[in-house]
Amino acid sequence: MTGVLDGIRILDFSQEVLGPWSTALLADMGADVDKVERREGEYGRRGGPSYITVLNRGKRSITLDLKHPKAIDVVRKLVARSDVVVSNWVPGVMDRLGLGYDDLVKIKPDLIYATGSTFGSEGPWAQKPGRDTLGQAVGGLMSVTGPPDGHPFPAGAIVADSTSGLALAAAILAALLHRERTGEGQKVEVSLYGTVICMQPWEITKRSFEPQTVMRRAGRNHAFALRGVWGAFKTADGYLCMAGCHDEEWPTLCRVLGIEDHQNDPAIATAELRNQNEEAIWSVLEPAFVRKSTREWLKALEAERMLAAAVQTYDEILNDEQARINGYIRTLEHPDEGQVKIVGHPIKMSKTPPAPRGPAPEIGQHTEETLLELGYDWAEIEQLRDDGAI
Amino acid sequence: MTGVLDGIRILDFSQEVLGPWSTALLADMGADVDKVERREGEYGRRGGPSYITVLNRGKRSITLDLKHPKAIDVVRKLVARSDVVVSNWVPGVMDRLGLGYDDLVKIKPDLIYATGSTFGSEGPWAQKPGRDTLGQAVGGLMSVTGPPDGHPFPAGAIVADSTSGLALAAAILAALLHRERTGEGQKVEVSLYGTVICMQPWEITKRSFEPQTVMRRAGRNHAFALRGVWGAFKTADGYLCMAGCHDEEWPTLCRVLGIEDHQNDPAIATAELRNQNEEAIWSVLEPAFVRKSTREWLKALEAERMLAAAVQTYDEILNDEQARINGYIRTLEHPDEGQVKIVGHPIKMSKTPPAPRGPAPEIGQHTEETLLELGYDWAEIEQLRDDGAI
Repeated sequence: MTGVLDGIRILDFSQEVLGPWSTALLADMGADVDKVERREGEYGRRGGPSYITVLNRGKRSITLDLKHPKAIDVVRKLVARSDVVVSNWVPGVMDRLGLGYDDLVKIKPDLIYATGSTFGSEGPWAQKPGRDTLGQAVGGLMSVTGPPDGHPFPAGAIVADSTSGLALAAAILAALLHRERTGEGQKVEVSLYGTVICMQPWEITKRSFEPQTVMRRAGRNHAFALRGVWGAFKTADGYLCMAGCHDEEWPTLCRVLGIEDHQNDPAIATAELRNQNEEAIWSVLEPAFVRKSTREWLKALEAERMLAAAVQTYDEILNDEQARINGYIRTLEHPDEGQVKIVGHPIKMSKTPPAPRGPAPEIGQHTEETLLELGYDWAEIEQLRDDGAI
Repeated sequence: MTGVLDGIRILDFSQEVLGPWSTALLADMGADVDKVERREGEYGRRGGPSYITVLNRGKRSITLDLKHPKAIDVVRKLVARSDVVVSNWVPGVMDRLGLGYDDLVKIKPDLIYATGSTFGSEGPWAQKPGRDTLGQAVGGLMSVTGPPDGHPFPAGAIVADSTSGLALAAAILAALLHRERTGEGQKVEVSLYGTVICMQPWEITKRSFEPQTVMRRAGRNHAFALRGVWGAFKTADGYLCMAGCHDEEWPTLCRVLGIEDHQNDPAIATAELRNQNEEAIWSVLEPAFVRKSTREWLKALEAERMLAAAVQTYDEILNDEQARINGYIRTLEHPDEGQVKIVGHPIKMSKTPPAPRGPAPEIGQHTEETLLELGYDWAEIEQLRDDGAI
């Protein structure tokens, strides 16, 4: 299969989600990813087979004790043959290991040096450690998610980490393009904090322009204007999501739902009123939606081209034809588990389609093979192992 | 300023968030973006100055009535000089306008043709319209966000749209890299559905590997294991977010919070127990955290390098030094509003730094200038205006 990144080699010191997800997305695009792990395996190995498989499909694994001087010699040889180095330690850790940009660019002058952090590499919080939920907290997403006037909730998945991984993949693609055009490498960087802010470009900027806006958490709707016929409604067998109802659509919605009696109710007769009086519109819609199944409502609403979709569970997504056809859910051959379904790639390309290239590696599965490629002989490899460097 | 995309021209038919955010991110990287709008302005103009500014900074605006044959002639000339065409209409609309990939590639053989949709271009839902909240619904994020066993909530901002915009920018960067390496253009595509699935790579794959996992909405924590000393806690003046407490950190946390009496409480003495008995650990932590301000707790916890951060409001982010220094919040000169703060770019690059290049255009601000560039003379431009094509 032809990939955008065929022939590009990435040396990956990253762990857990942000870094590994970025290099998984790039491995799907054809990059050769050499994953460097501690001899015990990276911290993310604690997450079990699903975690390791989806975040590390198609990579090779090399174990190295980065505190051992002989391991640093191996790293220098690896850097010399790599186009990109990726890490997501707290800023400063790579430098203290002798693996900072200034160290490595001496070995590989056009190196692309990519890092992910929690708060960004500059400023008072730069050196602080973090995790997904802290990114959602500082980045403001938590402040608008959850019950109105109640406790702040996170988005229910690690979207700060995963979206930062996507941003880091984009940063590396941009740097590779620049290198292709000019021959020049550089440092590129993302953070959970910056990514979460950039997941809310409209909302945060609106608050900046209109500081008098009343802020409250979004609840079932959205922190600002998107309310009323909006968000999830309970059906006979699950939940259905609506995304608005213009005034010209209102009579149709009333007919489809069998609530014609309420069509001229003065509390909810216009889109503006429905937006303002969410309790009033819910009190009409909720008893209607519970009468039929999500699929029945979807069929009726879609026939009118109204904006509606199922609130799908993970099980529904994993078995959904639409997700499979578009490659969002992929089947992969797992060495122990047989055929497994994993999350695919968000990008489709007609001539260079991204897709998982193989399973995740076992810890250190490619250590010896890689050392042989670098010119070490078997005696030297045995010595490195005896020394505890690999 | 040098940008990765200096000299790259993007013809942008997109509207609202997904497409415009992708091309805003690319304009920040130096691309020349020609935004084609209806004569009334794109639908997103209804969102007001903040919406238009952050999503369209640094672009040019050309008004065209795409149903007018003379406007299509203009488009063909625009395509001939462009590297990338972007749109996010429902799949099929561009084709019906005569602006499908097969039409445009005849004019520009190495064209990159980028589209964003709700559900993906293939499969039974391909032609259905959508909006952010439907992406959060079908993609499963809504199913895990909100009160456990209660109503599903969205993440409180339009993160499906904005993250899809980031994914589309990454797709275009990948296609430009491929074109640079091989001379070959192609179609690239993202969708809300695919992006939201890929925002949950671990969670959805874990469900696939472990279908017996009990699923419930995340509430204050996470849908799976990340609970207990996790998520937001009310303080004297706001909320503080915690991200776990290992057994070796527990005595320190007890000391910092002044809850040493509970250190050996058999219900919460180990990390595993604290994870399982969230009500028990909350009943101890909540009365402690409300005693001091968020800043005071942060200072004390950070001195011990414990994982903590403030649940920041948008106002705090807009005035935060860390966000400003790292470029996540930028100041821009707005033609009417003076200096305004807007959301910046998630990616930092040392040699080609992305940053907003200028304000958003007025509707059709660059129509005449662009037509002159394309070789039209003033008489022809007047005729196009009289004909209602521009």
